Amino acid sequence: MTEAVLRLKKNEEKRLKQGHLWIFSNEVDTQVSPLKNFEPGQVVTVEAANGKAIGVAYINPNTLICGRLLSRNPKVSFNQAFLKKRIQAAQALRELNYDAPYYRLVFGESDGLPGLVIDRFGDVFVAQITTAGMEAMKDELVQTIENLYHPQALVLRNDTGSRELEGLPLYTEVAIGTLPESIQMQENGARFVIPAEDGQKTGWFYDHRSARSRLQSLVKGKTVLDVFSYLGGWGVEAAVAGASEVTCVDASAFALDGLEQNAVLNEVIDRVITVEGNAFDVLKALLTEAHKYDVVIVDPPAFVKRKKDFKAGSEGYRRINELAMRLLNTDGILVSASCSHHMSRDALLNQIQQASRHVDRQIQLFDQCHQAPDHPVHPAIPETEYLKSFFFKVGKSW
Amino acid sequence: MTEAVLRLKKNEEKRLKQGHLWIFSNEVDTQVSPLKNFEPGQVVTVEAANGKAIGVAYINPNTLICGRLLSRNPKVSFNQAFLKKRIQAAQALRELNYDAPYYRLVFGESDGLPGLVIDRFGDVFVAQITTAGMEAMKDELVQTIENLYHPQALVLRNDTGSRELEGLPLYTEVAIGTLPESIQMQENGARFVIPAEDGQKTGWFYDHRSARSRLQSLVKGKTVLDVFSYLGGWGVEAAVAGASEVTCVDASAFALDGLEQNAVLNEVIDRVITVEGNAFDVLKALLTEAHKYDVVIVDPPAFVKRKKDFKAGSEGYRRINELAMRLLNTDGILVSASCSHHMSRDALLNQIQQASRHVDRQIQLFDQCHQAPDHPVHPAIPETEYLKSFFFKVGKSW
Repeated sequence: MTEAVLRLKKNEEKRLKQGHLWIFSNEVDTQVSPLKNFEPGQVVTVEAANGKAIGVAYINPNTLICGRLLSRNPKVSFNQAFLKKRIQAAQALRELNYDAPYYRLVFGESDGLPGLVIDRFGDVFVAQITTAGMEAMKDELVQTIENLYHPQALVLRNDTGSRELEGLPLYTEVAIGTLPESIQMQENGARFVIPAEDGQKTGWFYDHRSARSRLQSLVKGKTVLDVFSYLGGWGVEAAVAGASEVTCVDASAFALDGLEQNAVLNEVIDRVITVEGNAFDVLKALLTEAHKYDVVIVDPPAFVKRKKDFKAGSEGYRRINELAMRLLNTDGILVSASCSHHMSRDALLNQIQQASRHVDRQIQLFDQCHQAPDHPVHPAIPETEYLKSFFFKVGKSW
Repeated sequence: MTEAVLRLKKNEEKRLKQGHLWIFSNEVDTQVSPLKNFEPGQVVTVEAANGKAIGVAYINPNTLICGRLLSRNPKVSFNQAFLKKRIQAAQALRELNYDAPYYRLVFGESDGLPGLVIDRFGDVFVAQITTAGMEAMKDELVQTIENLYHPQALVLRNDTGSRELEGLPLYTEVAIGTLPESIQMQENGARFVIPAEDGQKTGWFYDHRSARSRLQSLVKGKTVLDVFSYLGGWGVEAAVAGASEVTCVDASAFALDGLEQNAVLNEVIDRVITVEGNAFDVLKALLTEAHKYDVVIVDPPAFVKRKKDFKAGSEGYRRINELAMRLLNTDGILVSASCSHHMSRDALLNQIQQASRHVDRQIQLFDQCHQAPDHPVHPAIPETEYLKSFFFKVGKSW
């Protein structure tokens, strides 16, 4: 039991008892335990107002979420054994769902490891540490991964902006081994080369795997438009599943170069077209040229990153889905996703419904997917749920 | 264009314009178009307050939902051609998703056919008409199905209680052909015999097909407890997918007889056990006897049928899920469903999370399913969405 104590105000233990893991700075009894006495990343015993120990947390006195609960057992130590146990439990959940070691191995709070994400590409591991509490355990973490997996390489992509809020430096580091010239992974029967050092986030978005698999069941012999394609998760997998032609749109030449490389790797390059440009502009141009598709996928980056972006972001979702519907053949399929936690599924559905009325189409929502099983949701922490995708049949107006 | 006109009050056309299909009686301008002047089931032109025709609806002056929009085109006739077109469109959506003719062919409003449900078991069709407007078209409907499919049999299961609100008699009728001695269907690699004449609703619940398929991917070599089993949709399919032992609990001896017959049909009877009784009582007894399972499925009938049942129903979901968790081995899987529209997914998740804290378990939500693609959601009509199922890993408390 650690000697440092963080005392909560009266009743502020309730949310924790209901299962949440976060402590906000205004919930701390700063008379008893002044936040300024703590170091960023320090491990403390958390006490309810009555002095009863209710768990162990690491804290950062400088952030709004000043504490993250690690265990409800106040006797637990945050050490290498702890990391090993939690990572092994996380691995068991992935092995329940996947045959091959290509998945998000650790998903932060949802796996009881706040501030840590690890993606696994076979023997190459890409981790991201986002809190001072987890950064303080960096050496133990690297050692734990070494002991458990003896990986070919472990890359720390500690270059995400949110680290600055925690007072942490931004850097990328190969912590174990050496990165191979190219990192390959598999998903839904397709193979991909991943830019783990200079791609977006950890290099790949495993979270849409279930939705992409669902897409594959619908595309045989069809023309597909993949908007915001990145490396081709949707588009290349659609081609592998038998789509007759796939047009992939992205603003990044770097992403489209990678996508083409992936199309070659899967021997579908003859059915894949890339278009570089702003999605809204490209879709308008395709409309002007009277292009039509059997399937359109709209998987934009988060348009609603913060609550205050909601109105403008919602409008963005409506506009891009409206353009997508106009590019569809009659009775075509629209796959529409959002990764914005602050854009709820109901709000997204409402925007798409409005778009359908605007272009006078009748839509039927025939399937819905969520973040894949390697991105589990912590039911007491709504913030761990962010991804949704809708599958619509888009027909003539009734 | 029909001569009878239903005039709406000012602004009451808005919800319709946004895509909804229902007209409530208090939205009608009864000065211009007194409801008592209409017959139940009569087809009318719907006009906005300014006299502009906005569509065709059938109405029932005696029900709260007094009108259901059939088309936004005021010139459309509600006739056999109309039925044929809508049924064919519905079929196209099913064929997009399924290889064999075992599915819900028509799902009411979501397929533009308010008041009509048709389930298809190969060449046997089971329909249910729930409104006066659709009942008025019964002969045309029977003829349309005859022309389109030449079915072996069409059964009208017009014995649902909600018909009484519409002033319709309750009856069951074989409208085409003769019912075979037993009706067989297939789902997820299993075969079933369906009691289409005396089972629940149309005899089978196709709506959980996607979720049951997901279950199958998780059960190999595991012990499974199927609570509220009915004919064995979950349980028998789990056995077919390789579960080592499946215990099925239901209050109905009739259902369990059918389930055993289905277990025999699939050659899994040696791995299937049935227990007749109230689910709460049976689960408590299993606990007392210290039984444990690797997977527990909880798929109860609607505990929240009306909004006013919400509190008691929520409590029911919490209690049954708590019992289920206590019957799970460590790191077991809980599959928890609700078919109550008035029990939102967030509310259900909240109850299950509470249950997990109550029994001191850590749960991770790793997958979510919805009603299958043959039960499409009409995005403007929230009432068309009712089914959700959650997949949890249930581990020791952190």
